[in-house]
Amino acid sequence: MPSDPASRAGAILEIDLAGIVANWRLLAEKVAPAECAAVVKADAYGLGVAPVARALAAAGCRRFFVATLDEGIALRAVLPGRQEIAVLNGPLPGTAGEFAAHRLVPVLNDRGQIEEWAERPPGILHIDTGMARLGLTPGELEDRPERICWHALISHLACADAPEHPLNSEQRQRFAAAHERLRGVPASLAASSGIFLGSGFHFNFVRPGAALYGVNPQPGNPNPMRQVLRLKGRILQVRDVDRGQPVGYGATHAMPAPGRLATVAIGYADGWLRAFGNRGSGRLGGVRVPLVGRVSMDLIVFDISAADPALARPGAFIDLLDEEHGVDAAAADAGTIGYEVLTALGRRYHRLYRGLPG
Amino acid sequence: MPSDPASRAGAILEIDLAGIVANWRLLAEKVAPAECAAVVKADAYGLGVAPVARALAAAGCRRFFVATLDEGIALRAVLPGRQEIAVLNGPLPGTAGEFAAHRLVPVLNDRGQIEEWAERPPGILHIDTGMARLGLTPGELEDRPERICWHALISHLACADAPEHPLNSEQRQRFAAAHERLRGVPASLAASSGIFLGSGFHFNFVRPGAALYGVNPQPGNPNPMRQVLRLKGRILQVRDVDRGQPVGYGATHAMPAPGRLATVAIGYADGWLRAFGNRGSGRLGGVRVPLVGRVSMDLIVFDISAADPALARPGAFIDLLDEEHGVDAAAADAGTIGYEVLTALGRRYHRLYRGLPG
Repeated sequence: MPSDPASRAGAILEIDLAGIVANWRLLAEKVAPAECAAVVKADAYGLGVAPVARALAAAGCRRFFVATLDEGIALRAVLPGRQEIAVLNGPLPGTAGEFAAHRLVPVLNDRGQIEEWAERPPGILHIDTGMARLGLTPGELEDRPERICWHALISHLACADAPEHPLNSEQRQRFAAAHERLRGVPASLAASSGIFLGSGFHFNFVRPGAALYGVNPQPGNPNPMRQVLRLKGRILQVRDVDRGQPVGYGATHAMPAPGRLATVAIGYADGWLRAFGNRGSGRLGGVRVPLVGRVSMDLIVFDISAADPALARPGAFIDLLDEEHGVDAAAADAGTIGYEVLTALGRRYHRLYRGLPG
Repeated sequence: MPSDPASRAGAILEIDLAGIVANWRLLAEKVAPAECAAVVKADAYGLGVAPVARALAAAGCRRFFVATLDEGIALRAVLPGRQEIAVLNGPLPGTAGEFAAHRLVPVLNDRGQIEEWAERPPGILHIDTGMARLGLTPGELEDRPERICWHALISHLACADAPEHPLNSEQRQRFAAAHERLRGVPASLAASSGIFLGSGFHFNFVRPGAALYGVNPQPGNPNPMRQVLRLKGRILQVRDVDRGQPVGYGATHAMPAPGRLATVAIGYADGWLRAFGNRGSGRLGGVRVPLVGRVSMDLIVFDISAADPALARPGAFIDLLDEEHGVDAAAADAGTIGYEVLTALGRRYHRLYRGLPG
C-alpha cells in the first residue's frame, strides 16, 4: 500500500487560510472607506498563490498585485472572474499581447513603458517618491502631457516600518502633490506597514502583503496580525552524546555537558537559512530547544537534553514556526526579516491548507 | 502573438550540463579505480535534477544519492534503468513498499531503521564518525549481529574543506576500523572536498555533489572545477540621481555623488539573499557594479555610474553569476557558502540548459 505523502514527509507546513482572510478583513476594516487590495507576488510570499488568492477573493478582495507577467498569467488562471490583477514590474517590450489576453493591468514605471503603452487601456502610473527603485520621478511627472488616462496612481514607502523616519512624511507629501495633479485617479501609497502610519497614508486603496501572512507591520509593538503558519520538522534520529561531542560541519558546536541530540529533516535547501546555525531554536513538547551546529543542506540538529525523553523519538516532530515563535521571531534568530523567512519556505515541505473557504 | 518566455523573463539562469559532466569526469579520473557517484539531492543543488541526472547517467555515472524518499521517486522516473538510487535520510516507518516499488536503496542511520529493514534487500549502513548528525555510532556497530548483509558502508566528513583539521584523520581512522569489521562491503567516506584529502579517503566509491556544480572543493586554493552557471538579471529601469539620493528600504545607502542606478528584476524571493544588501555586485559590459541598498523581495539596485551608458538600458542584462564571479565569489559577498547560493536559486528564473547530451 503506498504511504501517505504526509506520513513520509520530512517536514509539514500548515497554512491557515482562515487566518490570512482574518488578517485581510482586519486591515480592510481599519482602512475603510479606503479599499484593501492584496499583494500575492512571489507565490503569495511563499505560501501558495492559488489557495491564498482564492480565499481572499472569496472574502471580497477585488484587487491583486503580483510582481511579474508570468505571475499574472498564473493568477488569472486561478481567478478567472472580474478581479483586477496588476503587475508591479511593468511590461517588457513585446508583451502587450499577454497583458491583454489575460486582462492584466501593467504598472508603468518609466517614460519608455509609458510611451509604449500610450494607445492601450489605462495602466497604473508608479511614481518614485524616495526609494530610487521603480517609478517615474515627480519631475518627470510634471513633463507628462495631460491627455493620458490612468487607471490608478501608486508609490511605495521606503521606511514605513520606522514610523518616526522623516522620509515617511516627505514621501507622503510628494505623493499627495502628484495626486493633486491627477485628481480623480484612484491613489495608493501604503503597503502593510504604511497602513499603520495613519489615515493620511491610506488614500483610495492600500496594498498589504506581509501583514496578511502574519508579519508584524509595527516592529517593536504588539503584533495585531494572526500567525498563519506552523512548520513541523520530523526527527530522523535521536542520540545520547558525551561532553565535548562536536556537532555538524566545521565542528562549530561542542556539547558543554553530556546530553541528547535530535536530527531533523530540514536544511538550508528548504530555505531554513544557514544564518540559523547555532542561533535558531525549535519547540518539543512545550520546551524550547536550541539548534546546535551549522545548518546542513537537508538536516539540522537540536540539543533536546531539556525536553521530555518520551517525546524525543524518530518520527516525532519539532516545531520551527508556530503561534508562540512566529515568522518575525524566527527571522530575528537568523538576523533577517519575516518576509525572507516566508519567501524562502521550501518546496520539499508537505503543505496542508487549513480553513479552506467552504 | 504570444511572447517568448525568455524574452519576458526578469532573469535567465543558464546551466551548462556539459560543464557538470566535465566536472564529474575530472573527479572520476582523479579517484579511479574507486568509483564516482553523484549527489543530486535538493533538486541537484537547485539546478534541476532531471536534466542533470540524465546528463550524468549518459556520461556513465551509475550511483546517485538523494536526500528524501520523494526525491528518490522523482529521480527513478527520470532514470528508469539500472542506475542505483540511494536515499540518505533513510526510510520512515511504513515506506518500505515505496522503496521496493521504485527500486530505491535506503541509507540506514539508526538501530530502529536497521531492525525495521532486517528482512528486506540490503541497505546502506551509515555510521557517524564525528558529525553527530545521522548514522550509527561505532560503538553501536560493534553490537551488531554479523548476519546482516550490507549493500554499502558510508560515513561523512565534518571538516573536509579544512585539510589540516584533526577531525579528518580521526574520522578516517574510525571509518577504516568499521570497514575492517565489514570486509568486502563497498565503502565510501569522501564527498566533494574529501576527494582532495588524498586517496586514503577514497575507499571504494566517492560521492561528490557541490564540486559537480562548480563549488571549489579546496577553499583557498585555485578551483579545479568549471563554473556551470550564468545568472543574468534584467534591467527594468535606469535613472540618473543626485548626490544624497537614498536607495531602497530603510534608506541604507545614500549616493556619494551624482550617478546612475539600474533596477534589476531579482530579489530575495528569487533566493538572492538579503545578505547581499550593500555587499553584492554584478557585471555590466565588463565593469563590476556594486549592489546598493537593501535587497527587496523582487528587485535589486546597482550603481552603474562606472559602466558604459550605452549598455545601461531597460531590457539589457546585468550578470550576477558568471565565469569570472562564480558561486563561491557570490557566496563570499553574502557571508555564506556556494552550496547555499546554489540551493536558493529561484523558481522564477527562466532556465536554459546548454550542452544537452545529444
